[in-house]
Amino acid sequence: MLDGLFKPRSVAIIGASKNPYSIGHIVIKNLADYGFKGPIFPINPKGGNIRSFRCYKSVLEVPDEIDLVNISIRADLLPHVIKECGEKGVKFLIVHSAGFKEVGEEGIKREREMVELANSYGMRVFGPNSQGIQNADPEVSVYANFTFVPMNPGNVSIVAQGGGMGEMLKLHLYNVGLGHRMYASYGNECDLSMPEILDYYGQDEGTRVIMMQTESFKNPEVFLDVASRITPNKPILAIKAGRTREGSVAVSSHTGTLVDQAAMATAMYRKAGVVEFHDTHQMIKAAIAFSTQEPPTGKRIGMITNTGGPGIQAVDEAIESGLTLAKWSDKGKKRLEETQYAEASLGNPVDVVATAGPDHYFAAMDTLLKEDGTDMLLVFFVTAPFVDLDAIAARIKEAYSSSPKPVVVVIETRELWYGLINSLREGGIPVYEFAEDGARALAAMAKYAELRDRKKESPPELKVDRAAAEAIVKRYEGKDAYIPQREAFELLGAYGIPVPKVVEVKGKSDLDAAAKEVGFPCVLKVDSADVIHKSDEGGVILNIADEKQLAGAFDEIQSRFSGKKATFIVMEQKPAGEEIIIGATASPGLGSLVMFGLGGVFVEVMKDVIVALAPLSKPEAREMMQGIKGYPVLEGVRGKGVDLDAVEDLLLRVSRLAADFPNITEMDLNPIFAYPAGMAPMAVDVRLKIS
Amino acid sequence: MLDGLFKPRSVAIIGASKNPYSIGHIVIKNLADYGFKGPIFPINPKGGNIRSFRCYKSVLEVPDEIDLVNISIRADLLPHVIKECGEKGVKFLIVHSAGFKEVGEEGIKREREMVELANSYGMRVFGPNSQGIQNADPEVSVYANFTFVPMNPGNVSIVAQGGGMGEMLKLHLYNVGLGHRMYASYGNECDLSMPEILDYYGQDEGTRVIMMQTESFKNPEVFLDVASRITPNKPILAIKAGRTREGSVAVSSHTGTLVDQAAMATAMYRKAGVVEFHDTHQMIKAAIAFSTQEPPTGKRIGMITNTGGPGIQAVDEAIESGLTLAKWSDKGKKRLEETQYAEASLGNPVDVVATAGPDHYFAAMDTLLKEDGTDMLLVFFVTAPFVDLDAIAARIKEAYSSSPKPVVVVIETRELWYGLINSLREGGIPVYEFAEDGARALAAMAKYAELRDRKKESPPELKVDRAAAEAIVKRYEGKDAYIPQREAFELLGAYGIPVPKVVEVKGKSDLDAAAKEVGFPCVLKVDSADVIHKSDEGGVILNIADEKQLAGAFDEIQSRFSGKKATFIVMEQKPAGEEIIIGATASPGLGSLVMFGLGGVFVEVMKDVIVALAPLSKPEAREMMQGIKGYPVLEGVRGKGVDLDAVEDLLLRVSRLAADFPNITEMDLNPIFAYPAGMAPMAVDVRLKIS
Repeated sequence: MLDGLFKPRSVAIIGASKNPYSIGHIVIKNLADYGFKGPIFPINPKGGNIRSFRCYKSVLEVPDEIDLVNISIRADLLPHVIKECGEKGVKFLIVHSAGFKEVGEEGIKREREMVELANSYGMRVFGPNSQGIQNADPEVSVYANFTFVPMNPGNVSIVAQGGGMGEMLKLHLYNVGLGHRMYASYGNECDLSMPEILDYYGQDEGTRVIMMQTESFKNPEVFLDVASRITPNKPILAIKAGRTREGSVAVSSHTGTLVDQAAMATAMYRKAGVVEFHDTHQMIKAAIAFSTQEPPTGKRIGMITNTGGPGIQAVDEAIESGLTLAKWSDKGKKRLEETQYAEASLGNPVDVVATAGPDHYFAAMDTLLKEDGTDMLLVFFVTAPFVDLDAIAARIKEAYSSSPKPVVVVIETRELWYGLINSLREGGIPVYEFAEDGARALAAMAKYAELRDRKKESPPELKVDRAAAEAIVKRYEGKDAYIPQREAFELLGAYGIPVPKVVEVKGKSDLDAAAKEVGFPCVLKVDSADVIHKSDEGGVILNIADEKQLAGAFDEIQSRFSGKKATFIVMEQKPAGEEIIIGATASPGLGSLVMFGLGGVFVEVMKDVIVALAPLSKPEAREMMQGIKGYPVLEGVRGKGVDLDAVEDLLLRVSRLAADFPNITEMDLNPIFAYPAGMAPMAVDVRLKIS
Repeated sequence: MLDGLFKPRSVAIIGASKNPYSIGHIVIKNLADYGFKGPIFPINPKGGNIRSFRCYKSVLEVPDEIDLVNISIRADLLPHVIKECGEKGVKFLIVHSAGFKEVGEEGIKREREMVELANSYGMRVFGPNSQGIQNADPEVSVYANFTFVPMNPGNVSIVAQGGGMGEMLKLHLYNVGLGHRMYASYGNECDLSMPEILDYYGQDEGTRVIMMQTESFKNPEVFLDVASRITPNKPILAIKAGRTREGSVAVSSHTGTLVDQAAMATAMYRKAGVVEFHDTHQMIKAAIAFSTQEPPTGKRIGMITNTGGPGIQAVDEAIESGLTLAKWSDKGKKRLEETQYAEASLGNPVDVVATAGPDHYFAAMDTLLKEDGTDMLLVFFVTAPFVDLDAIAARIKEAYSSSPKPVVVVIETRELWYGLINSLREGGIPVYEFAEDGARALAAMAKYAELRDRKKESPPELKVDRAAAEAIVKRYEGKDAYIPQREAFELLGAYGIPVPKVVEVKGKSDLDAAAKEVGFPCVLKVDSADVIHKSDEGGVILNIADEKQLAGAFDEIQSRFSGKKATFIVMEQKPAGEEIIIGATASPGLGSLVMFGLGGVFVEVMKDVIVALAPLSKPEAREMMQGIKGYPVLEGVRGKGVDLDAVEDLLLRVSRLAADFPNITEMDLNPIFAYPAGMAPMAVDVRLKIS
C-alpha cells in the first residue's frame, strides 16, 4: 500500500533551504501553500527556521513519526541521510536528486546501493531524478513536489515518467477548472514502480480517470496485469513518448533505454483496454469528458448545431475517429419538425439555425437523447447576438441532466460570455472550443467502451506436440542463431502449423529419395544461416518439374553457394495463394510480440501491420486480422476471400509456439499462402532464431 | 475592384431597427463601436433615430453618396429597396436576408432576379444569406457584419463560406492577440464571388496570410487561377468542409450542392500551392506562425527544450508532419558543449535541463540558428521555479531577432506568468501551449515553402494524333455511354499511350485473321457497355495458345453472353507487370481530374490514390507518382522497379487526352502493366465514357 506516500501523516524535507529557488524550499512552500494536513519538518544541519517552520538538524531529532521524506541533496550525500531515515522508521523517500542511472555506470551503482540500503530498513524509494507526488484529496492535500501548477481537487489521477509532461497534463486540467486527484512523476523508477502507482490509483475511490505518460516500460508484464485489472472499472488514457524512429532515439538519449518500445506499448494498451493517444492535448480533452461522463454504449453520434460549418467539421472528424452518424426514428423526425424552425435542417447534424432559442435547443437535445439509435450527443452553440444565451445554456443543462448518455458542448464565444462555459461545466458538461475536439473526445469515450466491452477469452487449448518442439528448441538453445529450415518447418509442424513437405539433401545422391518424398513440382532451396535473402541471392529454384530438372537445378545451386557453408532442401511446391506474413519477436520482460500483415509490399511499403502479445485468444487473433487496413483482401474483394478461420487458427498456433518457447527470439513465416475456405493456409518459408 | 465593399466611404443599413437583437441594429452598433471612418445611415421608413444615428426613410433621402448597403429585410421586400439603391448609385449590397437558393426553386428564381436587378444598375450583390464583411485597417475600420468577435487590426485576411467557421477563425486570432485584416463570409455567393474576394486580399498590402473555408466551389477554374497568382507572394491556408462521404452529405444538405468536391479541392490546392488543413484549430495555429514569420528554406528542424517529455512529443510530431531533424556541425556541437550544463543533452532536441538560465537558452538558440543545417527552430520552455523567467524570455527574443529563420516557442506555464507569453508575442514570436502545435505550425510553413518553390513547368507539347482522336470522340458525342473497347484502345493509341494490338471479331470466321494480326498467346474479351466487370462475369479468357483454343474460347464466351448485345475482341496478351491504374473524371467547371494509383487492392482497399488536374506538367506527373504511399513499389523494393520516365509519360498523355476532350467524362486505364526500364508500360484494359 502506498498510503505512506500519497496520504503521509507527516513530511520531512532533507535539503530544506532558505534559498527560494531551491527544490527543498519550494517543496516546503508548496506543502504549506496547499494546506498539507500533517506537520512539515524541514531538515537542515544548520538548524534555524525556513519560512515559518522550525528546522531539525536530522530526521532523528524530529519528535514525531515521519511517513514521507523529500530529498534534494547531492547524490553522494544520500547514504548517510537514508540511513538516518531508516533508523527513524520513515516509510517513503522521494528522491529529487539527479546523478543516478541517467549519468552512466557510476550512477547505476549508486542507485542500486541506495535501493538496497533503503529496502534494508523497509523503506521504499520514489525516483531518483523525480519530481514528486501530489494528492489533492482535501483530507490530505499533499503537494510534495517542486512544480508550479496549482492543486485543485479533481477526479483525474496522473502518472507520468516525464516531469514536464506530467505538469502539462495537470496544467490543462487546471486551466479548464477541473483540477486533478493524485499525481506522480517518478523519474528513474529505481524501486517504487509505475505499475504500483497505477494499481493504487485503480483502488482509489476518488479517481475516476487515469492519465499516464511513459517513456519506457521497466516491467511491462506487471503493467499489463495491473492495467488490465483497472480498465474494466475506470479508463486509462495513455501516451507513449517516441512513436517514430526519431522519437524513440530521443527517448533513449533521455532515459538511457535503447529498445524501441512503441509497438510493444501499442500491443499492451490494446490488450489491457488502455486508450492510446499520440497528441497531448487530445488526451487531456478526452480526460475532461471522461471525468464527468459515462462512456456511450455504442458508436452512433447525434449532433446539434446552430451554424452549418462547424457541424460539418464535427461530422468529418467523428467519421474519421470511427464513429457513425445516428439516424432519427420517424417519431424523432416528427418531433423535430414540430419543434424547430421551418428553415432548420433536420438531418444529422440538426441545424437549429442561429436564431434558435432555448426551447429549440431543448427540444432538439431532448428528442435526440431519447432516440434509441443515438448513443451520444455533440451540441454546438455559437453565441449569436440575437438570442437569450443564458436561457439556452440553462436549457442545455436541463436536457443533459435528464439523460445518462454522454453530451459534449462546443461553444464559440468571446470572453464576455465565458460565464456560459463555466455554467455548463458546473453542470457537469465538458465544453470545448472546436467542433473537432468535441467529436474526438466522444470518439475516445466510445473507444474505451468498445475495448472494455469486447469479448474476452483465454488463449485456447491447442493440440500441439510440445515435446517434439522442445526437442528441436533444446538442440539450438544458447546458440543465438537461425536454425536450419528443415527443422524450423518441423518445429512449426509440431504446433499444427501447415507446412510443405521438406527433405534435406546433402548431395546429389539424395535427390531421388527426396523427390519421391515431396513429389513434383518441387522447389530446391539453399539452407544456410549465412543466406538471409534466399530469393535475391538465387537460393530458391521453383517449378522443378521432373528428376532431370532437379538434378540440373542442384548443380546450379551447389555451384552458386560453393563458397558458403550451405546445405539444401527439396520442398513440395504449393500453389500461390493470398500472401500473409506472421512474425514473432521476443519482447524482453513481456514474452513475445506477434506481428500480422499481408505479404510483400503491404508490410514493407504500406507498413500495414498489427502487433499483439503472445499467446493470443481467439477474439484477439480475429481483432488482429480485422485490424489491418488490408483486411478486405482477406475477406475477399469481389468474392476471392481466404479461409478466415484457418488464418485465425494459424495465428493462434504461431502465438502459442512463441509463448511456449521464449528463447525463439525471432520467427518469420513469410510468405504464408492463404487459400479459399476449406484449404489450410501454408507457411512456405520460415526464418527462426533461437537464443 | 472591391474598394466600395472593403473601403466604403459610407454605409447605409436597410432593416435598421431599434430592436437590439435585430441584425440591422447589431450592424449599426458594430460599425459605430469599432469606429467606422465614414458616416452611418440607418434606413427605416418610420424615420426617427437608432442609437445616436438619425434614420432616413429611404436611401434616396440620404444627402451623401453611399458606397455600401447592408440589407436584412425580408427576401420578398428586396426588389423595391434594391431599385432605390440602384437609383442612388450604391456600389455594393451586402444581403444578410435568407430565403434564397437554400430554400429551393422559388428562392433560386428570387436570387437570380435580385442579381439581374442589381447588376442592371451596376451594383454587385454580396450574399445573400451572408454574414457580411470587415476591414480592420485603421484607415477604414468597417465592421459591416452582425457578429460578436472584436475587431483588432492584424495581417491575416479571412474568407469563409460558412459564417460560423469564419467567426471561429477570427475568434482564435483575437484570442491570441493577433486580430485580423479583412474578413468576408459570403453565404450564397450569388454574384460577388469568393475568387474576387481572394484576389482583392491578394493585392492588399496589409494582408500577409489568407485563411479560407469553403463548402463548395462555384467557379473552381477562377479560384484556381486567382489562388495560383497569390501563393507565390503570400500563403493561403484552406479548409474544405466535407472530406468524408458523410461530411459531404452534410455539406450538400447545408448548401444545396450535390457533388462531392473534396478530391477536387485537394487537387486544386496542390496545383495552386494552397496549404490544406482538416482541423480548424491547426489551421489557425499555422496562420499565427505565418503572420509573423518568414517560411523556412528547408525542412530541417532544430529543437531546444528544458524538459525531456515535450521535446519527444515535438520530435514525433515533426517527423509525422514531414520535417526532418537537423544535425549539428562540429563547430555547433563544440559551442553547445562549452555553453551548456554538463547534464544537458546535446542531440536534437538540445535539452538544456530545467535549471538552464538566460545564457543557456541564448547560447543554444544562437548556436542552432547559425547552423547551416538548421532551417527552423522550436523552443520549449517550462517555467521552472528556480530560474529567472523574464531574463530567459528576453534572451529568447534577442536570439530570435538576430536570425531570419522561423522560430516558434512553446511555453508551459500558469496564468501568473502569462506576461511572458505576451512579451514573446510582442517580439513577433508565435507562442503555443503544446509542443505538438509548435511542430505542426513549423511543418505547415515548410509545406508552404515547398509548394511555392517547387519546379513549375507548362504541360509539355506531346506528339499526338489529335485528329484521329477527335474522329472517334465525335462518333460518340452526346451519347453519354461507354464506347467499344476497340475504339477506346484506338483513342489511347492516337495519344501515344501504348496499348496491345486489338481486333474486333464479330463471328467465328473473323478469328483466323484476328489471330494472325495479334499473334499468340492472345486474349479473348467481351466488349459490351452492359458488362462492367468483365473478368468477374467470365468475359475475359486469357492465355489462348493457338487457333484451336481460340475457337473453343470463342464458343464458350459467345454462349455466355448470348443474351446480351455484345461483340468480342481478340487482343495481344502482354506479360504481367507491376499494375498501375490511371483514371480521369470530368470535373464540372474545371476540366478533368486525373487519378493515379497502384493496381488492385492498393486502390480499392488501401485507397492509396492521388488526384490532380489535367493537363499535367512533368513535375506534376512526377509529384503524383511520388505522392502515393506505394511509390517504393514503383521505384523498386529490392531492385524490381519500373520505368518511371515511361510511367510519367503515360500520365502526361492520359491527362492531355482528358484535357483535350472534356466530353470524355470517365476514363479508366485499369490495369496498366508497367515494366522495368526500357519497356513501355501497357494499358491492357480500358473503360471510356463520352458524353
